[in-house]
Amino acid sequence: MAKVNPHYAKLVAGYLFPEIGRRVKAYQEANPSASLIRLGIGDVVLPLPDAVREAMHNAVDEMGTEGGFRGYGPEQGYEFLREAIVRHDFAPRNVDIGADEIFVSDGSKCDSGNIQEIFADDAQLAIPDPVYPVYVDTNVMAGRTGAADDTGRYEGILYLDGNEANGFCPSPPATGADLVYLCFPNNPTGAVATVAQLKEWVDWAKANDAVLLFDAAYEAYITDPNIPHSIYEVPGAREVAIEFRSFSKSAGFTGTRCAYIVIPRELNGRGPDGPVSIHALWSRRHSTKFNGVSYPIQRGAEAAYSDAGHAEIRTRVDYYMANAAIIREGLDGLGVKTFGGVNAPYVWAKTPDGVSSWEFFDRLLEKANVVGTPGSGFGSCGEGYFRLSAFGKKDQVEEAVDRIRTRM
Amino acid sequence: MAKVNPHYAKLVAGYLFPEIGRRVKAYQEANPSASLIRLGIGDVVLPLPDAVREAMHNAVDEMGTEGGFRGYGPEQGYEFLREAIVRHDFAPRNVDIGADEIFVSDGSKCDSGNIQEIFADDAQLAIPDPVYPVYVDTNVMAGRTGAADDTGRYEGILYLDGNEANGFCPSPPATGADLVYLCFPNNPTGAVATVAQLKEWVDWAKANDAVLLFDAAYEAYITDPNIPHSIYEVPGAREVAIEFRSFSKSAGFTGTRCAYIVIPRELNGRGPDGPVSIHALWSRRHSTKFNGVSYPIQRGAEAAYSDAGHAEIRTRVDYYMANAAIIREGLDGLGVKTFGGVNAPYVWAKTPDGVSSWEFFDRLLEKANVVGTPGSGFGSCGEGYFRLSAFGKKDQVEEAVDRIRTRM
Repeated sequence: MAKVNPHYAKLVAGYLFPEIGRRVKAYQEANPSASLIRLGIGDVVLPLPDAVREAMHNAVDEMGTEGGFRGYGPEQGYEFLREAIVRHDFAPRNVDIGADEIFVSDGSKCDSGNIQEIFADDAQLAIPDPVYPVYVDTNVMAGRTGAADDTGRYEGILYLDGNEANGFCPSPPATGADLVYLCFPNNPTGAVATVAQLKEWVDWAKANDAVLLFDAAYEAYITDPNIPHSIYEVPGAREVAIEFRSFSKSAGFTGTRCAYIVIPRELNGRGPDGPVSIHALWSRRHSTKFNGVSYPIQRGAEAAYSDAGHAEIRTRVDYYMANAAIIREGLDGLGVKTFGGVNAPYVWAKTPDGVSSWEFFDRLLEKANVVGTPGSGFGSCGEGYFRLSAFGKKDQVEEAVDRIRTRM
Repeated sequence: MAKVNPHYAKLVAGYLFPEIGRRVKAYQEANPSASLIRLGIGDVVLPLPDAVREAMHNAVDEMGTEGGFRGYGPEQGYEFLREAIVRHDFAPRNVDIGADEIFVSDGSKCDSGNIQEIFADDAQLAIPDPVYPVYVDTNVMAGRTGAADDTGRYEGILYLDGNEANGFCPSPPATGADLVYLCFPNNPTGAVATVAQLKEWVDWAKANDAVLLFDAAYEAYITDPNIPHSIYEVPGAREVAIEFRSFSKSAGFTGTRCAYIVIPRELNGRGPDGPVSIHALWSRRHSTKFNGVSYPIQRGAEAAYSDAGHAEIRTRVDYYMANAAIIREGLDGLGVKTFGGVNAPYVWAKTPDGVSSWEFFDRLLEKANVVGTPGSGFGSCGEGYFRLSAFGKKDQVEEAVDRIRTRM
C-alpha cells in the first residue's frame, strides 16, 4: 500500500466542529422531540443582503449570454473586487495596500490553513492558546510538530498562554519564532488588541525576523473606535505581516464563500539563496493550486461594498451584537464570569463550579438543549471555559439564555 | 526573516498558463491592432446552460429569505448533489460508487494539486510525460523531488514516456511506485485508454501497492462507446484508484467552479501503525482546510444532471467536438501530423520542420495571431509538439485554421 502522510496520526481528535456535530446528532436522534438552539458553530443566520443577491443574479445572467460569459478568471481575483477592497477596507483607515497585494479566495479557513505551505518544514511556530484549531491542525498535518502530550499540546509548538491575567491577549514570547498566528477580534475569546499591543508584536517580529499571520475575520464587529481593524494600521507591519479577511461574518457569506488575504510587497522570507518575496511565493502557490473564486460570488462580494450593501451589513452586525449583549448580560446576571461579546460576536464564559468544558457542553445540551462550544476544543488554556456565539435569531438567543437561567 | 519552503526554488518556470498569458499580453501590447484567436488555455466559451442558470438563480433567491438562507454547508458537499452524481455519472455505467465516497470541491486543479498532501513525503511518484503541469509542480513544492535537470525533469520522479509509438498512453513501469497520475481522455494529447489498458494499470497497482490518481475531467468528450468513462469500470479499481471529475468542461463551469473527487471505502494506504483508510485521511484534510462549495453553485451543478441541463451539455460538447474536427482535418490537410481530437477536446500536433514547441508558439502568435500551447510546457516528451484546444467559437476556429493555412 502507498505510504501515507504519517503526521495525520498525531492529530489528537477530529476537527472540533464535526465532533460537536456528531454529539448533537446523537442527542437529537435519542431525543427527537428536543428543540435545540445552536449557538455552537459561528455561523450567521440572517439572509444574504439584497444588494449582494441582486449582484449575484446579474452576474449569473451575464454568464448565460454569449457576450457576457466568463470562463477562468484571474486566480488572484478580479480587479473590480480587489480594487473595491482597497477602496473600502483600507483607504478609509489610511492604510496603504495595493490591489495587487490582495488575493481573493473561497474562505479564510482555506487561506489560514494553506499559508503554512510556503514556509519551511522546520519553521518555529508560536501559537496562542486558546486558538482557532485550523492553525494548529494544518501544521500538525504538515509535519511541523511532534506528538501531542496529555493536554493535547504538540511537541515543537511554542504555545502562548491566553488567560484572564493577560486578557486572553498574550504578549510576544521572550524567545524568537518564525511564524505567529494572531486573531483579533479573537475567536474564541472575543478579546481585541490595541494599537499598542499590536505594535509590541510588530516590533518583536522585526527584531526576530518573524512573520505575523493576522486573522481579522471578525473586524466588522469592532465597536470601540480605538481598536485597529487591520494590522497594517501599525507602522512597520507591511514588512512583517500577512492579513486574512473574510466576507463570511460581515456579509453573511459562510455558505457563499469569499475571503481574501493581503501580502505586502515588502514582506520577505529567508530562502535557500537569500531573501525571497512572500508575495511571489504565495502567488505561485495560489496560481498552481487554485483557479479563482466563482465569478457570480465575486460580484456579490463587490456589492457588499455598495452603499446599500454596506447599510444592510451594518444592520446585520448590529443585530448580532445585540444578541451578544443579551448573552453577556444574561450570563453575568447568573453570576457566570464572561469575556468578549463587545467587539466580537463571541462570548467566552467561565464554566460554573469548575466543571470541564466538554462536561458543560453535554450538560448544556441535555438540560437546556443549547449547543455551545467547549473551550478546551480551542486548546488546553480553554479548559474550564465555554464559547457562545451571537450568531442566532434574537428570539432563540433570548430563549437560550432563559433556558440556561431556568433549567441549569 | 522566516525560513520559507525551499522547494519552490526548484520550480523550473512559472506555471505554464500564466507564462503564455505574459507572452500574449506582450505581443498584444506591441501590436494593438492584431486580432488574436485564443486556442491556448482549455477554457470553454459557450454560455452557462439555461437549466444551470435558473437553478443558481433560485438558490440565490433562497439565500435571500429567512427560511431559505444556508450558512456553512457540509464540507463534503450537499447530499442532493452527491446523490445526483452517483445517479447520473456512475449508476448508468453500472459502477458501484456511494454518495459518501464523493467529495465535492471547487475544482479539479485544487483536488489534483491537494491530493498529494495525504501521502508520505518520500512516496515514489510515477508521472507520464507529457502531462498536466499541476501534478508535477505540486509535488515539487511539497519537496517530493530533487532539482530539475536541463530538460526540466526533476530528480526522484519516475517519468513515463508518452510518444507516438505507445500512442501517448504509457504502460506501467517495470519497477513499483506509490502514486501514479493518469489522465484519460488525456490533456494534452487527447489520447484515451481502453478497458484493457486501464486493467493493466489496475493490476500493476495491486501488485505494487500503488495508488492510481485518475483524472477524468474530460470524460464528457468520449465519443467511442468502447472507451471507459471511469476507472471504476475496471474490476478491482475500487481498491487502488482515486478519480477526479469536473463540471468545468462539461457544464461550462470554468468560471463558476465545481468538481468532485471519488475515494472508495476499500482504498487503503500504509500508515505508521498499519493500514489507513485513504477516505478517512482525505475527509480529515477536506474538513480541516476547506469549507464546502458555494450553495448556489452546487445547485447549478445539480441542475446539470436534469434532462434539460443534460441536453444543453450535449449540444455544447457536440459543438466543441465539431471544432476539434475542423482543427484536426485542417491540419491534416496541411500535412501536419495530428493526434487526439476524437474523444477529447484537444488536438495534439507535431510541429512542422522540427521546430521547437515555444518557437512554434511564437511563430503561430506572430504570423497567424493564433494562441496555442507549446507541447514542451507539458514535459520534455512534449517537445516538438503543440496543443490546440477545441474550446472556441466555431467561426474563430475556422478562421484560425484558415490563417494557419494562408499565413504560416
